[in-house]
Amino acid sequence: MRTRSKPFIALTMGDPAGIGPELCLTAVREPSVTNECIPLIFGDAGVLRRVAEACSLRLPERVVTLEEWQVDSPEVSASTIVDCHVIDAATCRPGQVQPECGRAAFACITTAIEAALKNRVEAVCTAPINKEALRLAGVPYPGHTEIFAALTGAEDVCMMLASDQLNVSMVTTHVGFRDVPGLLTPARVARVIELTADALRRMLDPDPRIGVCGLNPHAGEHGLFGDREEERLIAPGIQAARDAGVEVEGPFPPDAAFVPAHRRRYDAIVCMYHDQGHIPFKMLAFDKGVNLTLGTSVIRTSVDHGTAFDIAWQGRADSGSMLQALQWAARLSRLRQTNQ
Amino acid sequence: MRTRSKPFIALTMGDPAGIGPELCLTAVREPSVTNECIPLIFGDAGVLRRVAEACSLRLPERVVTLEEWQVDSPEVSASTIVDCHVIDAATCRPGQVQPECGRAAFACITTAIEAALKNRVEAVCTAPINKEALRLAGVPYPGHTEIFAALTGAEDVCMMLASDQLNVSMVTTHVGFRDVPGLLTPARVARVIELTADALRRMLDPDPRIGVCGLNPHAGEHGLFGDREEERLIAPGIQAARDAGVEVEGPFPPDAAFVPAHRRRYDAIVCMYHDQGHIPFKMLAFDKGVNLTLGTSVIRTSVDHGTAFDIAWQGRADSGSMLQALQWAARLSRLRQTNQ
Repeated sequence: MRTRSKPFIALTMGDPAGIGPELCLTAVREPSVTNECIPLIFGDAGVLRRVAEACSLRLPERVVTLEEWQVDSPEVSASTIVDCHVIDAATCRPGQVQPECGRAAFACITTAIEAALKNRVEAVCTAPINKEALRLAGVPYPGHTEIFAALTGAEDVCMMLASDQLNVSMVTTHVGFRDVPGLLTPARVARVIELTADALRRMLDPDPRIGVCGLNPHAGEHGLFGDREEERLIAPGIQAARDAGVEVEGPFPPDAAFVPAHRRRYDAIVCMYHDQGHIPFKMLAFDKGVNLTLGTSVIRTSVDHGTAFDIAWQGRADSGSMLQALQWAARLSRLRQTNQ
Repeated sequence: MRTRSKPFIALTMGDPAGIGPELCLTAVREPSVTNECIPLIFGDAGVLRRVAEACSLRLPERVVTLEEWQVDSPEVSASTIVDCHVIDAATCRPGQVQPECGRAAFACITTAIEAALKNRVEAVCTAPINKEALRLAGVPYPGHTEIFAALTGAEDVCMMLASDQLNVSMVTTHVGFRDVPGLLTPARVARVIELTADALRRMLDPDPRIGVCGLNPHAGEHGLFGDREEERLIAPGIQAARDAGVEVEGPFPPDAAFVPAHRRRYDAIVCMYHDQGHIPFKMLAFDKGVNLTLGTSVIRTSVDHGTAFDIAWQGRADSGSMLQALQWAARLSRLRQTNQ
């Protein structure tokens, strides 16, 4: 890897019809971002031009085509658009679920991941995509986490949400409610605890403390509710992580885990399913949190909100989470450079 | 029903080995309670004496035996113990799960419900029980809600948690995580919405507004996650309640439902399972919330916390939730008297 004064962060545009493009255009001009990194928007220049006009935003001065970027490797020293030319911008209808948009968003993500795998960027930060558009486009992954896992060859990844108020990791994420119990295994629980501890060690604290939720009401209350998932699956996973040197406690009754006095005892809470972690996280850090994919070779951060189709292309989107996500990407990149 | 200046509230002692007895003794001396109602502790005088000594609390001046209460119907004008004599107080070990304690707690509850069904008290307020002790005692109900449903002959009840910050009702409550999807039906969803609207009309607002959560991540995102429980089961239930005149919206993505701007739009949020409602509620109203059983002929309120065996009989328990629960019981009783 070349030594650079600031890390390069690939910033994917997200669904063209959502708030992703305007968030990218806003973020790459913010000193809190540009002081920390050189952001490269992997997007469609036509869409970004339309959005800039609609929202009265300025484009970065420099636009390079994907071919230039890939073949010529131009020297870049400030915020730049890498034009992946993935959609006919004139056909894009803001706020609408469109397969073309799902296809375009996916193409920008795969290009950014390739750039990271080739060490052309230090990390990828992603703007929000629409899962339905992705599906209509025939993309065989439900979300970013799964795309990054597949394209980097990672076998076992997890989603973590980070903020000043609370950090949570999920043992299962984008699966139906009824599929959750069948996906819990001691090995998976241990893996998510260990990935979380590893991320916290890099970001926060050399000796992180982790709490783990149960699955059932009252964590099963000794077999009274559920199928003893706590005893059979979660507790052995906790023990395995403890044996591997992680300071970890649980399984806790889920509704007790997030009350202020309890959550403050832990650097992160490991959750069994999407909403067990997302409900408390969004209550505490709505629009300010960062979504991290742990366990891949490519550093990936993301906003923790959706495409907000109802306000897309209106210049009303709050860029707080995007700024945080870029700053975390920069921070994790620097740590990785230090460690190498 | 006799006309009384203040309603009589039966206050069940809860598990003798938990913090219930000390909360009862504290609460019945509080002016915020005694100004609103005449609380009658349905408990064991021997246990209450031991707890009073251990915690340096005073007993109410008057103690009547259950027989006196049932046969002689003594005139009562201030806080009183109705001694149900349900356990050998000397055998009770604070902080321990004991079948004798489960049996004693259950006996006090059934006696209080009988008193309410005979209109000897206007409402029942319950101190916490231990579900495992209840089970060891052979009690065929997992919790208070189910006991009240069975003993009052109510066919379809639900649990509601109430506080100044948030009100939530649960479509399913004390069941295993994996059993939740199979228990959702449009009729049950509609029933819980209507019970919630009815309670809110009596307590808060003649035209309450109710929000309803989905089951799956992102409320299923149009079938992407789960088995279309939102479209098949929840949306038809919402429509049925709307047809019955309730102002109700949803199903919402569960993690979006509780962010401040969203939750403030609704007088209550209807949740599909225990932790979907309990996690946000306890974050906002820990130790201050009140648990209501809706759909029974007997008004029932309760603390929203457990037996706290780790601090039982030490005089350290916070009586905030208990005071709230008694005040709500008094308030609902007065409304019922007015309506009759």
